Amino acid sequence: MTRVGIIGATGYAGAELVRILCGHPDIELTILTSRQYAGVKFDEIFPSMTGSVNLVCEALAIDKICDNAEVVFTALPHKIPMEIVPELISCGKKVIDLSADFRFKDSATYEAHYQQHTAKDLLEKAVYGLCEVYFEKIKNTTLVGAPGCYPTSVLLPLLPLLKRNFIEPHAIVADSKSGVTGAGRSLSLTTHFCEVNESFRAYKVADHRHNPEMEEVLTIESGQPVNLTFVPHLVPMSRGILTTLYTTPVKGIGHKDIEDCLTTFYSGRPFVRICTENRLPDTRNVRGTNYCDIGFKLDERNQRLILISAIDNLVKGAAGQAVQNMNIMLGLDETAGLKMVPFSV
Amino acid sequence: MTRVGIIGATGYAGAELVRILCGHPDIELTILTSRQYAGVKFDEIFPSMTGSVNLVCEALAIDKICDNAEVVFTALPHKIPMEIVPELISCGKKVIDLSADFRFKDSATYEAHYQQHTAKDLLEKAVYGLCEVYFEKIKNTTLVGAPGCYPTSVLLPLLPLLKRNFIEPHAIVADSKSGVTGAGRSLSLTTHFCEVNESFRAYKVADHRHNPEMEEVLTIESGQPVNLTFVPHLVPMSRGILTTLYTTPVKGIGHKDIEDCLTTFYSGRPFVRICTENRLPDTRNVRGTNYCDIGFKLDERNQRLILISAIDNLVKGAAGQAVQNMNIMLGLDETAGLKMVPFSV
Amino acid sequence: MTRVGIIGATGYAGAELVRILCGHPDIELTILTSRQYAGVKFDEIFPSMTGSVNLVCEALAIDKICDNAEVVFTALPHKIPMEIVPELISCGKKVIDLSADFRFKDSATYEAHYQQHTAKDLLEKAVYGLCEVYFEKIKNTTLVGAPGCYPTSVLLPLLPLLKRNFIEPHAIVADSKSGVTGAGRSLSLTTHFCEVNESFRAYKVADHRHNPEMEEVLTIESGQPVNLTFVPHLVPMSRGILTTLYTTPVKGIGHKDIEDCLTTFYSGRPFVRICTENRLPDTRNVRGTNYCDIGFKLDERNQRLILISAIDNLVKGAAGQAVQNMNIMLGLDETAGLKMVPFSV
Amino acid sequence: MTRVGIIGATGYAGAELVRILCGHPDIELTILTSRQYAGVKFDEIFPSMTGSVNLVCEALAIDKICDNAEVVFTALPHKIPMEIVPELISCGKKVIDLSADFRFKDSATYEAHYQQHTAKDLLEKAVYGLCEVYFEKIKNTTLVGAPGCYPTSVLLPLLPLLKRNFIEPHAIVADSKSGVTGAGRSLSLTTHFCEVNESFRAYKVADHRHNPEMEEVLTIESGQPVNLTFVPHLVPMSRGILTTLYTTPVKGIGHKDIEDCLTTFYSGRPFVRICTENRLPDTRNVRGTNYCDIGFKLDERNQRLILISAIDNLVKGAAGQAVQNMNIMLGLDETAGLKMVPFSV
Repeated sequence: MTRVGIIGATGYAGAELVRILCGHPDIELTILTSRQYAGVKFDEIFPSMTGSVNLVCEALAIDKICDNAEVVFTALPHKIPMEIVPELISCGKKVIDLSADFRFKDSATYEAHYQQHTAKDLLEKAVYGLCEVYFEKIKNTTLVGAPGCYPTSVLLPLLPLLKRNFIEPHAIVADSKSGVTGAGRSLSLTTHFCEVNESFRAYKVADHRHNPEMEEVLTIESGQPVNLTFVPHLVPMSRGILTTLYTTPVKGIGHKDIEDCLTTFYSGRPFVRICTENRLPDTRNVRGTNYCDIGFKLDERNQRLILISAIDNLVKGAAGQAVQNMNIMLGLDETAGLKMVPFSV
Repeated sequence: MTRVGIIGATGYAGAELVRILCGHPDIELTILTSRQYAGVKFDEIFPSMTGSVNLVCEALAIDKICDNAEVVFTALPHKIPMEIVPELISCGKKVIDLSADFRFKDSATYEAHYQQHTAKDLLEKAVYGLCEVYFEKIKNTTLVGAPGCYPTSVLLPLLPLLKRNFIEPHAIVADSKSGVTGAGRSLSLTTHFCEVNESFRAYKVADHRHNPEMEEVLTIESGQPVNLTFVPHLVPMSRGILTTLYTTPVKGIGHKDIEDCLTTFYSGRPFVRICTENRLPDTRNVRGTNYCDIGFKLDERNQRLILISAIDNLVKGAAGQAVQNMNIMLGLDETAGLKMVPFSV
Repeated sequence: MTRVGIIGATGYAGAELVRILCGHPDIELTILTSRQYAGVKFDEIFPSMTGSVNLVCEALAIDKICDNAEVVFTALPHKIPMEIVPELISCGKKVIDLSADFRFKDSATYEAHYQQHTAKDLLEKAVYGLCEVYFEKIKNTTLVGAPGCYPTSVLLPLLPLLKRNFIEPHAIVADSKSGVTGAGRSLSLTTHFCEVNESFRAYKVADHRHNPEMEEVLTIESGQPVNLTFVPHLVPMSRGILTTLYTTPVKGIGHKDIEDCLTTFYSGRPFVRICTENRLPDTRNVRGTNYCDIGFKLDERNQRLILISAIDNLVKGAAGQAVQNMNIMLGLDETAGLKMVPFSV
Repeated sequence: MTRVGIIGATGYAGAELVRILCGHPDIELTILTSRQYAGVKFDEIFPSMTGSVNLVCEALAIDKICDNAEVVFTALPHKIPMEIVPELISCGKKVIDLSADFRFKDSATYEAHYQQHTAKDLLEKAVYGLCEVYFEKIKNTTLVGAPGCYPTSVLLPLLPLLKRNFIEPHAIVADSKSGVTGAGRSLSLTTHFCEVNESFRAYKVADHRHNPEMEEVLTIESGQPVNLTFVPHLVPMSRGILTTLYTTPVKGIGHKDIEDCLTTFYSGRPFVRICTENRLPDTRNVRGTNYCDIGFKLDERNQRLILISAIDNLVKGAAGQAVQNMNIMLGLDETAGLKMVPFSV
């Protein structure tokens, strides 16, 4: 049993890590930290977990974490991870960071959209934790920068097609719709029940920090500059992201090519389900699970390929993918602890 | 007081007509028909209306309607209106039809997407009831084909810009998100609470009947062929459509040009609110009202103009716009009966 | 046109007052105050109101209010009203206070559940603004303490029966369920969308401050000590309170007696609708309106009378009833500005 | 691996059985029947299950079921089970029926509320599947009548206290609130999204078929006639029942007695969590799990004990408890396949 700790266990992503790791057959959850709830039993903060986890949240003390865990998840607002991850790494820990701090190869891009980067030397070492694409690199690293929720939903459908040059690298539109857990557990008027209920709206239009993250990965992987316009929207539901992508297929590429390309690329990958024929992705079908469902439709009249993906933003978009990374790093079955059967309703 | 009848008063659009017309100062609601509920008091079917309306639903009898109403709304599934509207028109009635039957100028387009048209001679006479665009024609007609809910949300932002050649007529994407009343009051698994709740999905991808409706109007009004890819989505809420439009601005067109174009076009139009600066449309802000809110953002990095509109699909997208048409046809104040102050929450 | 001001216009009850008063035919809204938003246009805070109200929120200045308004609504947390209302009254203003400060006759009860009362002399003068019960007193007062939302839903069904001694004054249970606007617009984890969505729970079980408010009114009006157990619950919806009351009918009292008692008591009262026969109250049917729907069922097997009431907590439970009080105080038609036709859906 | 079949696998309870049994370590799901979907792959009907279950729904054929399963779940509308269960039993199968057909000891009560009973001889043999109360009997039976969802939420808090004579057997009120899955997957206006959303109402007031079911069990177990008034309500959410019980404690019984009674009775029972002190049950905390959370509050002022329970109606209220029964019947660990960690949000 590998001992595992979570720094920042009481945000929504942190609590979802606890949920998943509680039921993981090969690890033991040994330490949880929380600035806000230090000294409080975890199941007092999240009473649903009564009987499932029996730990008290602690203040952050790197020494104690190093003593009690071989693997550490950091589920914190960006900026804090780059202050503490270097020490965890130098103590020989395997680290999966859920913030933006270790997602970028180019520190200038990070600094343009976040702030000064104070652990640049680790950027090269860090692997972008999109498991279906960087499996081999993840296996051999000690530091993963887990992808953002929106990027996961955008990259998985696009990458196979861009790598094969089946779609044009310019003029891609990503219209994403997210449930409210994506905004976190912190209080704000924009997450007040009455402000969200019976409301639908866009936000940070073509101005979201996940946009450069997506473009960097797409550009690196496809070997050509990729630009996309990204518009996120808020849906009155708790969990789930649906992304609708509008792309231009290269001349001659038809329905069968696209289906084959996606099916082949994700052959044997347990968490990507290609929806063929009549089925379209629905956030409900992936709720609470690590699946990414991908469907598509060719609008031949307008020579446009529409790709649609659905994930649970807290699972494949955060905690689930983080655990998937851990499994790969530890040489475990990639699906260990992640075999939740989804609700039918 | 003009006497008004509604044929098909017990669907969601019909009942919304009742709600609005009940509070209208210049008309009297005299007759309601319903195939399903003939003989039943309207407020037994919709108990919220107890005290507001005191009519019994009747089976459809054209004679009786002609005796009791000068203006008739037909809120029926397509195909039925073209069977009964000709008789109403020949009795000298003013008719506002909420189905697709009198929306198209080109009967071939209608027939390609619906069925054979059996009242083609009326198509020329009929006016497309998009009030902000066809005000003068509506004033002088006796037959209005009221626009679909999605088309209203797509056409209002696009038309001013296309007419001025500020955006390219090709490669337009309309990504729309609708509340569930858009699917009507009929029973189906897709509107079962548990299938919609905590779900978000696309449907009829690039294959919705409102697509040709939009293209016909855009093509006629802009004087050039306009193509668009239209993808509707279902949102777990009752009312509202938010449409996000992705367009390419013509070279040299900047933020100020777009703002001026929209502001000028809708100057003096009481139901279109242009959201300048920081405000973006939200379906919540138009709930229960006849407003269409329009906002935009220029993504200069990708030379793309993103337009966003919000309407209440049952009001500006159906019953409210139908009443607005009636007001114009009768020479009343365009806002009569439509001055609802929206909820703040 | 009577000039009206609102102190505390940017909470949910305050904003609902703005919505209703905007459409009121006999008054002019002249001044809005807000501690949090002084200097900000009201329609920037509530964009839905764009075009309906054109006032800038101000800091509280009693002088300015007295100069600009004959009627003042105070929609503030308790304790603040008792500090400012005395001055408004001595300036000759008519005041409707929505807090608990002027609801109690017995200051000791107030002090046991809130805090020291610093304007006790006004308590005698103040009238409890339950319009259907205290109409005559309201007509002649300058100070109304508007009832709480839960008490309104509890008192309206109970009072007619208790006054007639049709039900036992002991052992009454009030099981209430409220939408989330009842918790206000302030931020708290308990109103975070994700904490409320797909959740149902009780809170402040038999320990809510509205309990003594209900008991005082019931005791005074029925002329005998009345005790009730009150348990509120939170419903994942924005607006509405449904209260289910469990009472013991006095021997010999049957269905017809109860129906007659309620129907007679509320005869001619425009905002109370008695649901006879098969219809049961539903919060949806009163949404956005000043109605209180009341239904009942006699469980003869257990000799128990179940009464059910539905109101919109922000309207009949707060702003609507406050405006109804104003109408009565000003000698206007009681329904002025309150004739909203409810949504059918 | 025990082979298991489900008759009626495509209703909400049936599909929930599939979800749970898919992840059960000790059984193999071999056959699913569905009248409506015979011949259709299960994961086409419930696409969320793609990759989890690979069976095609079949028409009902008792022979085939007997050949392929040792344990059979019947998740069908009442009346059908009593027609087919006798044959399954005589083939030596273990049967867990989720309908009302085998819940009653007294066939006259069943017949008064349902219809004629055609398999009365099995009623004596059948065990009421409330696992925490009838564990020993369940271990030794071949036929379980699984409790209704409401009765489970009512009986678990009441039984320990009634058995100890801590509360009065008369004048009990059960005010229950259920999510919409409780109404099943069949289409009806009452489960249409737009009719449920932003709505809260009671239904079948003191007239629900679960009432006699509760009273029979309470009467048998407490050895005295127990009457209760039961009022169910519909909550705009998918899953969960919260029941608020109003009871009269016997003189001298205090907080500690009640806590001890509940804690002792459920000591060692893995699925009942007694919420002590400040925590109150919330449906969100048990969502997707087999837990029943129980809390209470003594209203000493009114000498009333308020008990509150929360379950997931599809799990502890249906499929989960059915699987718990199977585990007991097969001598497996009672929690096998039921160790889902709940969502924190």
